[in-house]
Amino acid sequence: MSEKLVFTYNVNNAIREVLSELQYDKCFVLCDENSYVHAGPMLASLHDLLSDVIIIPPTDFHKNLDTLTAVWQRLICGGASRQSLLINVGGGVVTDLGGMAAATFKRGIRYINVPTTLLGIVDAAVGGKTGINFEGLKNEIGVFARPEAVLVTTEFMTTLPREELLSGYAEMIKHALIDGEEHYRDILGCDVINAWSTMLPIIRRSIAVKQRLVELDPREQSVRKMLNLGHTVGHAFESHALAQGTPIRHGYAVAWGLVCELLIAHRRLNFPSAIIYDLARYIERYYGAYVITCNDYNDLYSYLLHDKKNYSGRLNFTLLRNLGDCVVDCHVTQDEVEIALDFYRDLFHL
Amino acid sequence: MSEKLVFTYNVNNAIREVLSELQYDKCFVLCDENSYVHAGPMLASLHDLLSDVIIIPPTDFHKNLDTLTAVWQRLICGGASRQSLLINVGGGVVTDLGGMAAATFKRGIRYINVPTTLLGIVDAAVGGKTGINFEGLKNEIGVFARPEAVLVTTEFMTTLPREELLSGYAEMIKHALIDGEEHYRDILGCDVINAWSTMLPIIRRSIAVKQRLVELDPREQSVRKMLNLGHTVGHAFESHALAQGTPIRHGYAVAWGLVCELLIAHRRLNFPSAIIYDLARYIERYYGAYVITCNDYNDLYSYLLHDKKNYSGRLNFTLLRNLGDCVVDCHVTQDEVEIALDFYRDLFHL
Repeated sequence: MSEKLVFTYNVNNAIREVLSELQYDKCFVLCDENSYVHAGPMLASLHDLLSDVIIIPPTDFHKNLDTLTAVWQRLICGGASRQSLLINVGGGVVTDLGGMAAATFKRGIRYINVPTTLLGIVDAAVGGKTGINFEGLKNEIGVFARPEAVLVTTEFMTTLPREELLSGYAEMIKHALIDGEEHYRDILGCDVINAWSTMLPIIRRSIAVKQRLVELDPREQSVRKMLNLGHTVGHAFESHALAQGTPIRHGYAVAWGLVCELLIAHRRLNFPSAIIYDLARYIERYYGAYVITCNDYNDLYSYLLHDKKNYSGRLNFTLLRNLGDCVVDCHVTQDEVEIALDFYRDLFHL
Repeated sequence: MSEKLVFTYNVNNAIREVLSELQYDKCFVLCDENSYVHAGPMLASLHDLLSDVIIIPPTDFHKNLDTLTAVWQRLICGGASRQSLLINVGGGVVTDLGGMAAATFKRGIRYINVPTTLLGIVDAAVGGKTGINFEGLKNEIGVFARPEAVLVTTEFMTTLPREELLSGYAEMIKHALIDGEEHYRDILGCDVINAWSTMLPIIRRSIAVKQRLVELDPREQSVRKMLNLGHTVGHAFESHALAQGTPIRHGYAVAWGLVCELLIAHRRLNFPSAIIYDLARYIERYYGAYVITCNDYNDLYSYLLHDKKNYSGRLNFTLLRNLGDCVVDCHVTQDEVEIALDFYRDLFHL
């Protein structure tokens, strides 16, 4: 069943309203140290409804089994039952790990997501992909479990650094590429850095692209794979950066990944090169470049081989024929990847 | 979706047939040290189909996060993808933990259960309840995830000790109590100790009771709760015994739990006392008694309070009005429990 989406300029009231419609015994909140700073006052004013606020350490580094175990323990200590609720207030780390904690506690309790980052709003909080990193592999352990509701607000975006806004915006670019030309032109024309407070309509449009695909294919066996656009190379960039001790933001990795995958799509499916050229300029201006040399190709390829989407050891990509024209389950060769990385380095002057 | 049930006298052929109908890249097997002894030759003859056999330590003591983590690691080392399969060959520990491992690996791979104990056949392997023990609480962490198929054979029952057969038989008694008088009379009339090799028909009938309820209510929100009959007090006995360092078999705990819960049902819902008396004699003859004194009541009550079925701190029982007439969500008081335990001790001469 689909999560209920609530678009609001007053998240406190929206939480009260959503809770008033649910039957539950206790309500727990999960934050990380960062989101707790921003959401603390809001949570304080909801104290009459909350049994406990669980605070975990921030960043993807802590999206692991130790943190998940600590959350399970806190739920037990707080007397959580099968009828309890968990509200995840934070970015993708909190909603991914909190969703996993809820989905596995006593074989599943209900949860609500209140994403506090743009990336969380347009990507992580919706669609029920939960999980943790394991053995250095991103989201290697997880389950599909939809939240009861997702509260979407720009209230927390006032405090987001520019890089965080851009990180989320990369997923919006992806949704627009999947959706079609009109959406794509609107996205590249929008000033995310300065206009976030007026963005709720375009955010709604972006989430709608994702939710429509999740509805059709909740367990990612067919059309939901479209949402992996940019993420195959993107995840490889992320793993590569992490291994070098210089982690990069997910959205930045996706932005660079999108360019690489459009380059593969150009050779394979004739995706228009003019659009790639324009997008690369846009990405370079806002995101800069992820610096690689041909000495990194082998490492990048080995990360690609670990991608969850692969089948029988073959790389599985989502590619575009044109704006709004997506092809899933494309088996891409090592050669095609390396040629695209060559072109990527040319485009970004590396 | 319902798991496919395959009743077979030749499990090797049945596995080959089930696998031939599935698309997958690699197939892994999970055993524990005990089931590997009995299933080893069968697995050896299937070596052409298997990528790896993962062996975990036996008993409920190892149905924990450490073992689960080790299984995830072995799947990664073996190159398991989302298109891989896991075949769980063993008792309830293997099918519960293996089901959980499969359900959470890369957000879920398909799995097949080959239960090797009677308890596994009639209870654990069917219905998609997976999980591990956590912080001393049974199945505290888990998910609902149905297997693709369950292969039911009496082939492994030749080597089962009498206590293992009886442990499974307690669940069959429970299914019969839920189903009605005819099934119940047939069950009490069957010689499980000597006649296991001819039991496939009555096993099929027993599983059908469970599968029908799971079909109607896979996530245990209504009628599936009927299957909890005997398990509320049963789990408390199990936890109590474990804490004393003298663990008891699950089915034995259920057998004694059934008597206690029928005693509650007698006072509350007028369940016929003659049936309780007969059943107590049957249970005592085959299972003996679980020895408690009134000094154990407080401990037992505190275990009852941790039951996953509780809501708002109230004990939630499944009770019977009569054979085949089940009432779920009965809120039982501490007094009612203690009176039933008094009667239980009388009935078993404790």
